[in-house]
Amino acid sequence: MKLSKLFLHTKKDNPKDAVSLNQKLLIRAGYIQQVSAGIYVYGPLMWRVIRKIEQIVREEMDRAGAIELNLPLLQPKRLWDETDRWETYLRSGILFHLQDRKDEEYALAPTAEEVITNYVRNEVTSYRDLPVNLYQIGTKFRDELRPRFGLIRGREFIMKDAYSFDLDEKGSKKTYEDMKQAYVKICERCGFKYRVVEADSGAIGGSDSAEFMVLAETGEDTILECSGCDYGANLEKATADYADDHDYADSKLEPLKKVKTPGKRTVEDLCKFLKIPVEHSVKTIIYETDKGDLVAVMMRGDYDINEVKLVNHLGVNSVTTASAEAVKKATGAEVGYAGPIKLNGAKLIADLSVKSMVNFECGGNETDTHYLNANFKRDFPTPEFVDLRNAKAGDLCAKCQKGQLKECKGIEVGHVFNLGSKYSQAMKLTVQHNDKDVALRMGCYGIGISRIAAAAVEQMHDEHGIVWPEEIAPYQVIVIPVSGKDEAQTKLAEEIYAKLQKQGVEVLLDDRDQGAGFKFKDAELIGIPKQIIVGRDAPKLVEFKDRKTGKVEKLSVEEALKRF
Amino acid sequence: MKLSKLFLHTKKDNPKDAVSLNQKLLIRAGYIQQVSAGIYVYGPLMWRVIRKIEQIVREEMDRAGAIELNLPLLQPKRLWDETDRWETYLRSGILFHLQDRKDEEYALAPTAEEVITNYVRNEVTSYRDLPVNLYQIGTKFRDELRPRFGLIRGREFIMKDAYSFDLDEKGSKKTYEDMKQAYVKICERCGFKYRVVEADSGAIGGSDSAEFMVLAETGEDTILECSGCDYGANLEKATADYADDHDYADSKLEPLKKVKTPGKRTVEDLCKFLKIPVEHSVKTIIYETDKGDLVAVMMRGDYDINEVKLVNHLGVNSVTTASAEAVKKATGAEVGYAGPIKLNGAKLIADLSVKSMVNFECGGNETDTHYLNANFKRDFPTPEFVDLRNAKAGDLCAKCQKGQLKECKGIEVGHVFNLGSKYSQAMKLTVQHNDKDVALRMGCYGIGISRIAAAAVEQMHDEHGIVWPEEIAPYQVIVIPVSGKDEAQTKLAEEIYAKLQKQGVEVLLDDRDQGAGFKFKDAELIGIPKQIIVGRDAPKLVEFKDRKTGKVEKLSVEEALKRF
Repeated sequence: MKLSKLFLHTKKDNPKDAVSLNQKLLIRAGYIQQVSAGIYVYGPLMWRVIRKIEQIVREEMDRAGAIELNLPLLQPKRLWDETDRWETYLRSGILFHLQDRKDEEYALAPTAEEVITNYVRNEVTSYRDLPVNLYQIGTKFRDELRPRFGLIRGREFIMKDAYSFDLDEKGSKKTYEDMKQAYVKICERCGFKYRVVEADSGAIGGSDSAEFMVLAETGEDTILECSGCDYGANLEKATADYADDHDYADSKLEPLKKVKTPGKRTVEDLCKFLKIPVEHSVKTIIYETDKGDLVAVMMRGDYDINEVKLVNHLGVNSVTTASAEAVKKATGAEVGYAGPIKLNGAKLIADLSVKSMVNFECGGNETDTHYLNANFKRDFPTPEFVDLRNAKAGDLCAKCQKGQLKECKGIEVGHVFNLGSKYSQAMKLTVQHNDKDVALRMGCYGIGISRIAAAAVEQMHDEHGIVWPEEIAPYQVIVIPVSGKDEAQTKLAEEIYAKLQKQGVEVLLDDRDQGAGFKFKDAELIGIPKQIIVGRDAPKLVEFKDRKTGKVEKLSVEEALKRF
Repeated sequence: MKLSKLFLHTKKDNPKDAVSLNQKLLIRAGYIQQVSAGIYVYGPLMWRVIRKIEQIVREEMDRAGAIELNLPLLQPKRLWDETDRWETYLRSGILFHLQDRKDEEYALAPTAEEVITNYVRNEVTSYRDLPVNLYQIGTKFRDELRPRFGLIRGREFIMKDAYSFDLDEKGSKKTYEDMKQAYVKICERCGFKYRVVEADSGAIGGSDSAEFMVLAETGEDTILECSGCDYGANLEKATADYADDHDYADSKLEPLKKVKTPGKRTVEDLCKFLKIPVEHSVKTIIYETDKGDLVAVMMRGDYDINEVKLVNHLGVNSVTTASAEAVKKATGAEVGYAGPIKLNGAKLIADLSVKSMVNFECGGNETDTHYLNANFKRDFPTPEFVDLRNAKAGDLCAKCQKGQLKECKGIEVGHVFNLGSKYSQAMKLTVQHNDKDVALRMGCYGIGISRIAAAAVEQMHDEHGIVWPEEIAPYQVIVIPVSGKDEAQTKLAEEIYAKLQKQGVEVLLDDRDQGAGFKFKDAELIGIPKQIIVGRDAPKLVEFKDRKTGKVEKLSVEEALKRF
């Protein structure tokens, strides 16, 4: 393709309102144009990248035995009602929905569990049809509260979603593992540095769940991985052992002591004021669930509460830290003084980290007041102990008990779920087997196509622009005649271009009437993996430049052509 | 692909609620499943057909120099407001639209003139960027009042839409002709019997417009084409000369005569009652425009009014025949007695067919009353004469003045428009040229991908099922071992299947545990172009069957393999 025909318009400066790196670079390099928040035009170069990623994903899905089909984007509410997810999604705000001219309600597909389950139950005739794994590649919608991070958290985006149906859990687990392997291959082919980590299942549901994280400093997800074994997990899901610095086993229970702590609302201030180590303090945080219940969570003072774990433990859709009013109602005190003793208005649960503690500090349920030497059972009923803690860097790996966890940042590009029979039971997707109606075991598997493109930019770029990995680059090589006015150069560039095309190489020719500096800058910015620069030494030699390493070789035309 | 893995479920009977042929056959053959009215799942086989059609269209677009990109499906209202089309589309009812969480309004793309014009105006920097022709392939939405005709008039469908931008009308006209040629190639490659016909531009606007009609008895569009030249047009647009059987030149004006015609409301009844030839009668129909104006149209008694021509002439969005109330208001009479004499409440216009008439019959603007011997000028002011008539079979071709028009039925699969600068002016898409701001000349070009698939089924089928043309068939050949229990047959079938795959042939193997009759029926129903039947004569000979002709040849395996 000749650049003059590609309708490519690079911009000199970063777009003013773009914050994230992929958005800045992709807009500046003419790949995308924003239409509304989180809604983009994919320009000609971008669309080639997207189609390449699609093709990689398609090939790996086909290889894994999945079959491609296409589900509608308009999804009738009646299907969502069968699984009770309509209200949940509606409340979360992310569901684009509309009424047709007959006032029937439809969602714009954010995911397609209901639609595919409906399709399969209307088609499946026997357990002999199983296993089956169906996938599609296409547009999805999420009305994000804050569309951000360029193509990574858009409101309209492209993804591949697959849904598998097995007769039993053994089959389902195998399909799940096969799909994980297919995703590994996709990440490899895209040239990513990535991690496969344990993840929370969230609103989708199910038992096992893993995320594919592209490593990037700019990533919004925090990953904890073990230095000693293969354990890795999203912070939301990560568990870890922790240093229990104190042996309480022989501690004598000291008398409970109420102390005045005016204005000491933070753990740090308080411990400094009381002159106790922070590991001897317990904070109690009051949460309100989406059902309106109040829950008080006890956590060792130096640890953080993991709200995802809390939500999962409580079996609710969401929690928020309670309002000052609700705290007052539950504790009788202002925010900052909640504690387990004489707590009446909230259900008390505690993190595992406080289970063995004795003689600890805690809030007094009275403004400007805390207790010292508080103890379970003696001072208040022992609550349920649950893992509610954010694991963190430095923690001991719970899997190998040897390595230490370290933290890195990632961008989630894929997520696989072993769903069990949540959807098939709700929607009565069953087959007869051994004279019984068996609800199928399902899995679902999503990978973001447009997100992969954006994650590649986040991971692979330098100060000059994008550095596409070869398999997803829009073109493999760009031929640049240094001077558009030098006829010999122009002619040779055209020849090289024609020959490469004949070789089946995806090649760009910068035939624009622009100066050399402009053309070089553009070539770097748009990130084509190789450059063939036809300059002063032509026709004897051309420069062969690698975009990633910056390495330049002087080659004969023949040698340059042989590189493809 | 092995049929046992394809999740294909053919049905024994036609679906009860399916009316149209493509819907019946595609559902029965397991290609599609209906989710809601006009909304379908494209199953694995269907999706292969769709992707093949996509690829044909993509190749021809690329060959024509068009460039692929991708526009969002969510289109902000603010862009539609710039061309004043939001209200028009909203009123028509076909616009799916929704509000996001911030109450901003969006349309679900029914077409993309506004979005692409916005894209181009934000990117284009100089007239040197022109011409450019941009296309996308993807989902479109129309909230049809009556979704019908299977995939042909769905509410969610797949199409290719292209938009061209030229500096001047000469360039624009060339692009338009190039695109017409590309569409001709697409129709040829899809194996269609088709016609390219003149068409009305409708709500899209513009000057030239042509439709690509796949011929099928079941088609909803009526085409008139000349027996003597290449003229062809959609009935909506067709013009024709007509037999003017009477020479009025020397007629003397007879005295106007009012006659009582109780209950004679139809032209036929009336002419019989008055004993006059129907060609001497003039009917006057009262229409109401979307703006609320009343218009009376005079038409020779034996001809029909073309409402599309009327709408275009009046420059309104739509017309409907006026209510009895409105007719009463305009004429003072009940419906059936409207006429041009002493007509006060409506603007009068007349079709060309009445221009030369003298002494004609017409309504009396009084219930149960008509006039005989009415004449222009003498009895009422001569109105404007316009072509408002439906051309019909038997009419003389207006182009060659020799051939006769004949009628056939078609399915519109493509539509090309030379738009002029309607959108570029409204949206201020201009470039500097010769020191002037020039509004670009645009064209738009749509072709229905899913509709092509459905039209193929409507045109190419027989009593046994679908007969796919080779280029868009989901697979080229199906290998059928007659007896699944005969090991030699099964083994040979597997071998042939493996060899064809190796040859790069898209091949199905019917490895299902089913009887021969069942497998044969399915092979016919799903319409794979060739069948290789491995039966009694194997391994010496196999049967090679052509789905279209039904011809069966006995071939050696080697000979059969050579056919691909």
